[in-house]
Amino acid sequence: MNKKGLLLIGHGSRLQYNKELIVSTAEMMDGLTDKYLIKYCFMENSVPTVPEVLDAMREEDLELLAVVPLFLAKGIHVLRDIPSLLGLESGSCRGVFKLADGREIPVVYAEPIGIDPLLAELMLKNADRAIATHL
Amino acid sequence: MNKKGLLLIGHGSRLQYNKELIVSTAEMMDGLTDKYLIKYCFMENSVPTVPEVLDAMREEDLELLAVVPLFLAKGIHVLRDIPSLLGLESGSCRGVFKLADGREIPVVYAEPIGIDPLLAELMLKNADRAIATHL
Repeated sequence: MNKKGLLLIGHGSRLQYNKELIVSTAEMMDGLTDKYLIKYCFMENSVPTVPEVLDAMREEDLELLAVVPLFLAKGIHVLRDIPSLLGLESGSCRGVFKLADGREIPVVYAEPIGIDPLLAELMLKNADRAIATHL
Repeated sequence: MNKKGLLLIGHGSRLQYNKELIVSTAEMMDGLTDKYLIKYCFMENSVPTVPEVLDAMREEDLELLAVVPLFLAKGIHVLRDIPSLLGLESGSCRGVFKLADGREIPVVYAEPIGIDPLLAELMLKNADRAIATHL
């Protein structure tokens, strides 16, 4: 049966922390829903790469691919590099993704984290915790 | 009366989005609590810089300074560059901050966003929204 694919893209890093964040977040997302077949990949310094995982996605029986950048805000990777890897036209959040069996399915491109009250709460929580822990 | 200072540090960017995120988050934090005197600054490409805002904080009547990195995960900026700017010893999350009047107050260094179930929910929400909007 057809399923929706979800590709979570992280920045990647020579240190382990960004990869741990992306992998753990993908696992948590997988625990929250059965709606998506979830995979992750990285722009630089960590593996798997975006092209590697896009090719793995082509082998799946998908009806749709949603690509979600796990970045704080729009920057060069989110605005230019990822759309280019997806073959999206400039400024477009929708394109076509070719499966290995020749079918063409829609690919949609989601927003990064962005401005969100949850982020403000989390930053205050981290400040409070640092004072409680280190003072 | 003495107050706690909170310095929110963002990455900065040649594009406007990272700065908008940091400024809006600082404003939301300010709306959530009166406990902190909140200022923001950037590591690169955006202003004000960290040294500029640390100097502005020295002029305030503070009892404590909490420094919060608005970064997704630990990387070079969070692990090395910000501690160096704060004069923290390697691996330490507590140091001393000198006010302009000569007093020395504690500075504590908080965690970045890190692995959090809220982040997994947010990424799924962004995927759902992209499908609803662009399909």
